[in-house]
Amino acid sequence: MPADLGAISDLIRVIPDYPIDEVSFGTSRRCSAARPGSAAVTMLADRFRDHGVTRVIGVEARGFIIGAPVAVELGAGFVPIRKPGKLPWAVAREEYTLEYGTDKLEIHRDAIHPDECVLVIDDVLATGGTAAATARLVEALGGSIAGLGFILELGELNGRSKLEGRHVESLITYAGS
Amino acid sequence: MPADLGAISDLIRVIPDYPIDEVSFGTSRRCSAARPGSAAVTMLADRFRDHGVTRVIGVEARGFIIGAPVAVELGAGFVPIRKPGKLPWAVAREEYTLEYGTDKLEIHRDAIHPDECVLVIDDVLATGGTAAATARLVEALGGSIAGLGFILELGELNGRSKLEGRHVESLITYAGS
Repeated sequence: MPADLGAISDLIRVIPDYPIDEVSFGTSRRCSAARPGSAAVTMLADRFRDHGVTRVIGVEARGFIIGAPVAVELGAGFVPIRKPGKLPWAVAREEYTLEYGTDKLEIHRDAIHPDECVLVIDDVLATGGTAAATARLVEALGGSIAGLGFILELGELNGRSKLEGRHVESLITYAGS
Repeated sequence: MPADLGAISDLIRVIPDYPIDEVSFGTSRRCSAARPGSAAVTMLADRFRDHGVTRVIGVEARGFIIGAPVAVELGAGFVPIRKPGKLPWAVAREEYTLEYGTDKLEIHRDAIHPDECVLVIDDVLATGGTAAATARLVEALGGSIAGLGFILELGELNGRSKLEGRHVESLITYAGS
């Protein structure tokens, strides 16, 4: 593993049985360290640098922390995808299932235009439900998906199966227990 | 007003009577435009560039969108402050009043060390309740506040009165109706 990736990996804090039993959660301790945090942003941006990305979407809320600096790095605009009721203007909405229930996502209707090339960023790829719903929401507004980028992929949950045919990148993959 | 500030100002969308009657809300349309979004990050970072900032705090959730790239720009670590129950590890908590009720904020206990010089970033300075609570939380963990930076200040709400003696910067001030 390259030195920078090792430094990021070292800072991931795994919380057993969170948010529910038998689901473990890699949390954001990594973000509080400047050098690996910044390296993670650059490495993710590098994987999509030649894709003509015009908008980066961050999925609420940890996706904002990675997605916003990736947008600056790529010279793209940043667009937040949020839980219902958080965006104050007219929204498009998508419902989806996740490992512990169902949820909804919203985006401002004018945030993506038909000519936009969109990169979706989140911290963790788990079951892929949120990521797939986000991609559908972008496409419903007429945008196209350049790809989806994650810091951490929980391989055992096979989120990639929900993203078949899409360009998916993750910096670190946990193979599972 | 400088051209870049004008471009940011043009992209602020004011939603009347949101989240409650007689409170208006400047929302994040600005973020979806790359050039002014990136300029806002650089301008905010510039105001604190010589302050030895080691950690940038973003206040959930819109503060993440500005705070994370400001952290990268300053070579500092990023630390999220979140609503109760969102952080999975041991937290410190602060309760505070805001214009439409009371609220609580949490931070991971190990996110700030006693030698940290901390910049607090949020999108809007309204009554100052959230910002003041964030500063108290940082100080309770032994950190010192380098300052607080905002894109937009709602001057009529006089949030600066809750931040007296602190270094407060905002890019754009609405004087009020």
